[in-house]
Amino acid sequence: MSTQPNAEITATLRRIGQQARQAGRALARSGTGARNHALEAMARRIEAEAERIAGANADDLHAAREAGLDPALIERMELTPARIQAMADGLRQIAALPDPVGAVRELASRPSGIQVGRMRMPIGVIGIIYESRPNVTADAAGLCLKSGNAAILRGGSEAIRSNQAIAACIRAGLEEAGLPADGVQVIATTDRDAVGALIQMPESVDVIVPRGGKGLVERISREARVPVIKHLDGVCHVYIDDQADFDKAVNIAVNAKTQRLGTCNTMETLLVAAGAADTILPEAARQLRAAGIELRGCEQTRARVPEAVAADETDWAAEYLGPILAVRVVADLDAAMAHIERYSSGHTESIVTENYPRAQRFLREVDSSSVMVNASTRFADGQEYGLGAEIGISTDKLHARGPVGLEGLTTEKWIVLGDGHCRG
Amino acid sequence: MSTQPNAEITATLRRIGQQARQAGRALARSGTGARNHALEAMARRIEAEAERIAGANADDLHAAREAGLDPALIERMELTPARIQAMADGLRQIAALPDPVGAVRELASRPSGIQVGRMRMPIGVIGIIYESRPNVTADAAGLCLKSGNAAILRGGSEAIRSNQAIAACIRAGLEEAGLPADGVQVIATTDRDAVGALIQMPESVDVIVPRGGKGLVERISREARVPVIKHLDGVCHVYIDDQADFDKAVNIAVNAKTQRLGTCNTMETLLVAAGAADTILPEAARQLRAAGIELRGCEQTRARVPEAVAADETDWAAEYLGPILAVRVVADLDAAMAHIERYSSGHTESIVTENYPRAQRFLREVDSSSVMVNASTRFADGQEYGLGAEIGISTDKLHARGPVGLEGLTTEKWIVLGDGHCRG
Repeated sequence: MSTQPNAEITATLRRIGQQARQAGRALARSGTGARNHALEAMARRIEAEAERIAGANADDLHAAREAGLDPALIERMELTPARIQAMADGLRQIAALPDPVGAVRELASRPSGIQVGRMRMPIGVIGIIYESRPNVTADAAGLCLKSGNAAILRGGSEAIRSNQAIAACIRAGLEEAGLPADGVQVIATTDRDAVGALIQMPESVDVIVPRGGKGLVERISREARVPVIKHLDGVCHVYIDDQADFDKAVNIAVNAKTQRLGTCNTMETLLVAAGAADTILPEAARQLRAAGIELRGCEQTRARVPEAVAADETDWAAEYLGPILAVRVVADLDAAMAHIERYSSGHTESIVTENYPRAQRFLREVDSSSVMVNASTRFADGQEYGLGAEIGISTDKLHARGPVGLEGLTTEKWIVLGDGHCRG
Repeated sequence: MSTQPNAEITATLRRIGQQARQAGRALARSGTGARNHALEAMARRIEAEAERIAGANADDLHAAREAGLDPALIERMELTPARIQAMADGLRQIAALPDPVGAVRELASRPSGIQVGRMRMPIGVIGIIYESRPNVTADAAGLCLKSGNAAILRGGSEAIRSNQAIAACIRAGLEEAGLPADGVQVIATTDRDAVGALIQMPESVDVIVPRGGKGLVERISREARVPVIKHLDGVCHVYIDDQADFDKAVNIAVNAKTQRLGTCNTMETLLVAAGAADTILPEAARQLRAAGIELRGCEQTRARVPEAVAADETDWAAEYLGPILAVRVVADLDAAMAHIERYSSGHTESIVTENYPRAQRFLREVDSSSVMVNASTRFADGQEYGLGAEIGISTDKLHARGPVGLEGLTTEKWIVLGDGHCRG
């Protein structure tokens, strides 16, 4: 990706981009009914073609095993009957969401006599770059279509047969609803240059959403010539205040770390107020260790939890994505917020406290995409927030922040209604 | 700007950036009362120091004349007593606006029992790069402060004494309210490298707003390593439908072109439906010519308006910012929208029609930052839209689109209120 993509790939991508731009215009003008019809038709076709999709996936899995790919990656690639059904169900759930396109807010009269408001519209063409999971093909296509955008999808090359089989159902669903099949295009070449070309076509791609590891996201952000909705680290914190409820604190600490280990909203550092270090910390540590979590603590932590190994500076910034937790005793709320300000990746932080002003200060002053009181960081996700489905989680501050659903795939224009009004 | 800025300037800017980051944290946590107090204090000090500001401005004007600068630029630089008073009044108007910081929307309960909503917050540090008008110093500082952001301002080097005199009032006003003076920093060096350094410090600047000519904006967009809220061309259209009211159509066409010639929301191309070409076009053309506007028309226009010169392809894309108007007769609404799609810069378009479905289609289908029915394009501005004041007009689609007021200088974080909730 760091060199110029070759000319043939560039020409192919340019053609795909032009087709997407044209299809995007038709989708932006299409009605709610047609887009929902297409989503339902896609779901039906995925169910009808489940065997063909499974067959294509079996070929991908066979090739991946032959090539000696990482078993964890192969596991993520696999489309079981349940996963194929989940794709169809997901498309129907997207169809059931309210249509964001055309929604007008805050239409109000101005002293001049004009009425001014804002109308929500598709962005245009969304490029999605993802890795091994083929179900992203259906999810991303569904969200882009629902929000009236054309999508150009580039999945992992190891899953190309699966992705193409799913794409065939999606495109047939679009056509069944009278919408252009090019509303969703899955790039057919596995050439890596295709990614480089896709992210450098501002004339036909309006925004790129990379879904994958940090390396992929950083590379795309660095080289893209179009805006990127990106998600980098999730170094999430829970702060247990000295006025925390014992049970809530222990339960949240354990849930935030252990409910799933490898997700971006999993707690990576537990901060405990000095006033709770002798009471809550030992029990939280006991339950975390019982769940198989290795603790890496500051000196004050180790004084209470002798099994904890010594944490160093790198632990405070680590996104373990595994059974390790950094633990630090801090003086008070201010010290906790100073730690978070220094080490957090700005994803999700939670305070456990019964104290009202401290809860309010934490909510207001912590600068992360999700800030919580008395709740597990694991709630930071589009489904839990009521977005229905998410195209990703943004750690940026502009345009979209936190879980990105249909709204993040749209823009708003100003509308002005007059009756011959001129400016005086 | 295209080469690496020199090391000394870079070090200076880095220090300014760190001070801004620190001040920004304090501003983000400050109360509405303190920020409004500072705005009032700034206004009072500008009034009290009006003579000193005028003196500094006289020195700038003298140096500018000595250097033989463009008289139009010198006119823009001048701070008359009325313009100084307008700065103070503007700060009081900003103080009177509702505080966007901390506003929570759509807090709602989820099936899990948590409550989820969004809280509006400052972005952090805003860099503003502008040209000759020193009043931008007060306006931009006021908007950034009101929205809880720190500002780094870089004005035109020819107005440096005026800008520093205004900055002294602003910083004293911040201190009077108990807020950090570094909440607003005006870069004291006239070295051009300072701009290059400012736009390449993502660690201490969150967004850049360039306010100036297209050359400045393009250069900054190309070289910035932080997001840019940018405004490029305003190639705005009025489409007179064949079901337009005669008087409304003529009045809007004349007002959109002549109420002010040099603004970005001034109409640059008039589109007239063939069905209105024999009725409305001749009278609109007569009034426009009487107002001193040169018409450049298509063949069908020239058949009705013999005084019009022949337009060529470049006229359809031109932002004249002066007494010239391109005029084209089009078959119907679809042809008008096709022309707009091809040639518009996406700023502002207006349809004049009495036909309801056509008005609805135009509103929905035209992809510009402002879309109007029966109103002059000249209304596209923050004051007219009720934003109170604007930091600029964005021709981008992401984050901020159209006139950018306080909301565009903020971000939203998700907040979650629980009572010990864990994810199951």
